[in-house]
Amino acid sequence: MSDKKQKKPQKLKARLARGFPDRSSADIRATDEMMAKIRLVYERFGFEPVETPFVEYTDALGKFLPDQDRPNEGVFSFQDDDEQWLSLRYDLTAPLARHVAENFNDIQLPYRTYRAGWVFRNEKPGPGRFRQFMQFDADIVGAPGVQADAEMCMMMADTMEALGIPRGDYVIRVNNRKVLDGVMEAIGLGGDENASRRLTVLRAIDKLDKFGIDGVKLLLGAGRWDGGKEGEGDFTPGAGLVDDDINLLIGFLRSTVSIKPLSIKFDGGNQDEDTKLMPHAMFPYDGSRLTSNERFAQGIEELSIIRSTIHASGYGPDRIKIDPSVVRGLEYYTGPVFEAELLFDVTNEKGQKVQFGSVGGGGRYDGLVSRFMGQPVPATGFSIGVSRLMTALKNLGKLSGEAASGPILVTIMDRDRIGDYARMAQELRVALNPVDANNQPLGPTIPVELFQGNPKDFPKQLRYADRRGSPIAIIQGGNEKEAGKLIVKDLIEGKRIAETITDNAEWREAKAGEHLVDEGDLVITVQRVLAEQASDGQDI
Amino acid sequence: MSDKKQKKPQKLKARLARGFPDRSSADIRATDEMMAKIRLVYERFGFEPVETPFVEYTDALGKFLPDQDRPNEGVFSFQDDDEQWLSLRYDLTAPLARHVAENFNDIQLPYRTYRAGWVFRNEKPGPGRFRQFMQFDADIVGAPGVQADAEMCMMMADTMEALGIPRGDYVIRVNNRKVLDGVMEAIGLGGDENASRRLTVLRAIDKLDKFGIDGVKLLLGAGRWDGGKEGEGDFTPGAGLVDDDINLLIGFLRSTVSIKPLSIKFDGGNQDEDTKLMPHAMFPYDGSRLTSNERFAQGIEELSIIRSTIHASGYGPDRIKIDPSVVRGLEYYTGPVFEAELLFDVTNEKGQKVQFGSVGGGGRYDGLVSRFMGQPVPATGFSIGVSRLMTALKNLGKLSGEAASGPILVTIMDRDRIGDYARMAQELRVALNPVDANNQPLGPTIPVELFQGNPKDFPKQLRYADRRGSPIAIIQGGNEKEAGKLIVKDLIEGKRIAETITDNAEWREAKAGEHLVDEGDLVITVQRVLAEQASDGQDI
Repeated sequence: MSDKKQKKPQKLKARLARGFPDRSSADIRATDEMMAKIRLVYERFGFEPVETPFVEYTDALGKFLPDQDRPNEGVFSFQDDDEQWLSLRYDLTAPLARHVAENFNDIQLPYRTYRAGWVFRNEKPGPGRFRQFMQFDADIVGAPGVQADAEMCMMMADTMEALGIPRGDYVIRVNNRKVLDGVMEAIGLGGDENASRRLTVLRAIDKLDKFGIDGVKLLLGAGRWDGGKEGEGDFTPGAGLVDDDINLLIGFLRSTVSIKPLSIKFDGGNQDEDTKLMPHAMFPYDGSRLTSNERFAQGIEELSIIRSTIHASGYGPDRIKIDPSVVRGLEYYTGPVFEAELLFDVTNEKGQKVQFGSVGGGGRYDGLVSRFMGQPVPATGFSIGVSRLMTALKNLGKLSGEAASGPILVTIMDRDRIGDYARMAQELRVALNPVDANNQPLGPTIPVELFQGNPKDFPKQLRYADRRGSPIAIIQGGNEKEAGKLIVKDLIEGKRIAETITDNAEWREAKAGEHLVDEGDLVITVQRVLAEQASDGQDI
Repeated sequence: MSDKKQKKPQKLKARLARGFPDRSSADIRATDEMMAKIRLVYERFGFEPVETPFVEYTDALGKFLPDQDRPNEGVFSFQDDDEQWLSLRYDLTAPLARHVAENFNDIQLPYRTYRAGWVFRNEKPGPGRFRQFMQFDADIVGAPGVQADAEMCMMMADTMEALGIPRGDYVIRVNNRKVLDGVMEAIGLGGDENASRRLTVLRAIDKLDKFGIDGVKLLLGAGRWDGGKEGEGDFTPGAGLVDDDINLLIGFLRSTVSIKPLSIKFDGGNQDEDTKLMPHAMFPYDGSRLTSNERFAQGIEELSIIRSTIHASGYGPDRIKIDPSVVRGLEYYTGPVFEAELLFDVTNEKGQKVQFGSVGGGGRYDGLVSRFMGQPVPATGFSIGVSRLMTALKNLGKLSGEAASGPILVTIMDRDRIGDYARMAQELRVALNPVDANNQPLGPTIPVELFQGNPKDFPKQLRYADRRGSPIAIIQGGNEKEAGKLIVKDLIEGKRIAETITDNAEWREAKAGEHLVDEGDLVITVQRVLAEQASDGQDI
C-alpha cells in the first residue's frame, strides 16, 4: 500500500480501551446485591470498611520496582511531576500493608477491616480476561495465631451460605505454605537462591488437575513436550529434580490428592472420617524426610489448630477442609493458605462439564507490613473475585440484577402542555413511593418517567414503554383533556389481550387495557392496576 | 553536604501518594448511606445504573489530545503496549458520551442512566484538594427538549430533600449558556476565534462574589492588581473590553445579581413574585443590544419553558430558581446549566461565616456524543461532588458514619482452649443476627469478635474492647470453666460504675457490670444486657 497521500485525520472513534469493559444495569445491580450480602457477614465478624486509593507509589506495591525507564511488568505506571513513579494498584493487600504501616501508631490491633475495590492489571486482555476487575477483601492485621486464619475460613464459609450457595456446593480448602516449604526443603530447594526453582515446582504441582501424575513428573524432571513426544508441540522446561526427589514429591502429591492421609496429631474431640489417620502409613515411600523437617511439622501442627478451632465452632469438613494440594500463587504467603471453591458443574467453552472452581482465596502474609517497619506484623486475609463469584451466583439463579419494576411512562400528546404531563409524573412519583419520616422508602421503588424523547411519533413512545418493561402508560390527548379525563393504559393486560385477538386487531389493540378515568383519579387508578397486575402474577 | 558516601538503599517508606487519600470507616459508611438515598431518588425518576471503566483512550476524553510526547494536562495518561495513549477518566460525562456513541444501535432513547464513580485529576494537590474524588452523575441522552433539563433540576431538588436538607437551606439555580453566549455575541466575542477571550470574561463574571462589581470591571478591562494599586501584588491580565461593552456586561450582571429582572415572556399561570417582570426596565442602560440578539432571546425562551414546567410540577422558586449569574466552567455546555447550592452558613478556614455553596451542577451538552457520530445527539446531565456534599451533610448532622454497634468481644484467658472461645463467638454471632429465609437480616448487625491479638496481656484485651466501643465482653478463665460458668461483662454499665466510685477503685472496676452465669445462659444473658443498655439509652 502507498502512504503517499496523507488522509485527513481519522474521525474520532467511540471505542472501549482494550480490556476495560462498561458495566450494564443488570451487572451493577447484581454486584451491589451480592456485595451487600457479603458486607453483612463481614460486619457480623467485627470487620469495618477501610479503603485505600487507586494510586500508590510504585515501590509501595512490592516487587514491581521501577528498574526500567517505564515499569510496566503487570502494573499500569506513570511518572508524577516530581519524577516519582505512581501505579494503579494491582491488588488490595499491598496497599493495605502500606496503610497499616503508615498509620501504625493510630491503629488499634488486631485491626479487622474489609474493602471492595477495583484493581488493575497491565496484561493482555482476552475473552473474560479484563484489565480492571473488582476484589472484595477482608483482613486481620496484628493477629499472630492461626485461629485468625481459621476465623477467615469460617467467615468465608458463612459468606458462601449467605449468598445462597447450598452446603455441599462449596468448600473452603485450607493448606499451609509451611507444609509446602517443608517439602521443598526436604528435596533441597530451601533458601533464597532456589526461589525460582521452587516456583517452577509449585507451578508443576498446580498442573496436577490438567496433566495428571505423569505430566507433573515430566515437569518436575526434564520437562514436557505438549505433543506428548519429544519434538512435538511446545516444550516446557522442567524443574530438573532427581528421581528420588520426584518420587518423594509425587508420593506427597498422591497422598494429598486423596486428601485424607495428612494430619498427624489431633487434639481429640471432633475427629471425623477424614481425620482418622494412619500417620506413618500415609506415604507410600520413606516419608521420614518430610516428617523430620521442622517447617513441615510446624505447618502440620498449625493446620491441626485450625481444624480444632473450626470444628469447635461447628464447621465440619463438608464446609472447611484441610487439603494440602492447595497451591496459591502469590509469593508473599507465609503460613496458612485457603481457597473458596464452588463444586457444582458448569459447561465450559468446549462443551465439557467442569467444576466451577475457585472464587477467592487468601492466606497469612506476615512479611508484607513489616517490609515498611522495624518489627514483624502478622496478618491474614481473604480476597473474593467479585465478577467470578457473580457469574457463579447467576449460574445458580441466585441473582437477578433486575429492577423491581419498569417505569410508569407519562406520554406526551400535546407538546404545549408539557407542564401538565410533568405534574402528572411528579404526582404519581410521590404517591407511589411513600417514605417514612427519615425519608426511608416504605416499599419497593416504582419509577415514573416523563417521556423525554421526541414526542412527535406517538407509537414510538409506546414502543419505548414496551422495551423498558413499563407496566403502565398514562395518555392524555386534547379530547381527554377537554373532558377532564385521562387514560391509564395497562400495558401488561394490553399485551395479553393483543395476543388473543386476530381480527380488527389494530383497533382493538390500541384500546386494549385502557382505562378512561377522571383526571383526579389518576393515582388511585394506577394503584389499582398495579395491584391487579401483582395479584395476576402478570408482571413481566 | 557530601554525597561521597553512598548510603545503603533507603528503607521502604510507607506513604500515601500525593493527593490520593485513604478512606476511613466513618467516611465510607457516611458515603454509602448518602449514595443509597440519592440512588433511590434517581430510580424513582426512571434512571438506571450504567458504568464506564476507569480507563479510556485519551482521545475519547475530548480536549486532552496527546499532542506531546506525554500528555498530562490535567489527566493521568500512560501509553499502552500498542502505543495508544490511555487516560484515567477525569469526569463521568465524556466516558458516557463514548459509551452511548459506541452502543448507539442497541440503546433505547431517551436513555436515562446514573452512575457513581471515582474520577482523577492530574493537578497539584492541597488541603482538601485531592487527585481522586467521587462524582455521582445522572444523564438523559436523546432528550431534545429543555423539559428534560427541568426534570434534572427537579430531581436534584428532590435529592437534596431526600438527604434531609430542609427547604430553604438549598436552591437549584438555573441559567442558560445561550443567554451568556448571546451576551458575548452582543459585545463582539462570538465565534471560535474568541473562545479564549470568552473564557476570560466568564472567569471574570465568576469572580463577582469575590471581588465585587469594581473588581470584575478591572478584570473585564485592563486587568487587576491583587494589592489594589498598580504594582502591588500579583497582576491578573484583563479581557481588554472597551468601556461600552464593560458597561453592558456590568449592567447585565447588576440585573442578574438582583436575580429578578430577567425572564421576559411567560406562559401565564404560575407566575410568582420573582417572575412579575418589567421586561425593558431590566437593564439600566440600552438593553436592546442584548434582547435583539437571537441566541439571547432563545436562551430566555428556554428558561421560561423550564420555569413553567417546574412550576406546573409544584416546585416553587424557593427550590429551583432562574438565576442568570450562574457560570459553569466546562466548555461543552450548549444550553441550560444548573447548580445545586447550599445556603446555610459554615465557618471557613479564616474563621469567617460563608455560605456553604455549590455541591454539584450540570447542564445540556448536545455536542458531546455527536463528536463520535454523524448525527446530533442531545443530552443533559447533572453531577454531584460526593465528598463535598458529604461534608455539608455532616455539618447539618445528617450523617453519622457510625456502625450500628461496636463488637461484642469474646476474650481469651486460656490459650489452649481457643476452640471453646471460637464456639462462643459463633454461637453469639448466629443468635444475635437472625436472618429470614432469604438470608436478609431481621435487625441491625451486632458484630461478635474473637480476640485475635496476642492474648497474654488480658487487660489489653479489655482496652481493645473499650476502644472499639464494645458493649459487652465475654470472659471465661479456668475457674469459671471448671464451674461450668462464664462472665458476661457489661462494659457500658461497668464504665458508668467505675466513674462513680473513688476508693478501692481498681478491684471494684474489675468486677463492675459483671454477670457470672451458667455457660448455657450465654446468649440469653447477652440479649438481656443489650436490651437493658438500649432501654437505658446508654449505648455509646
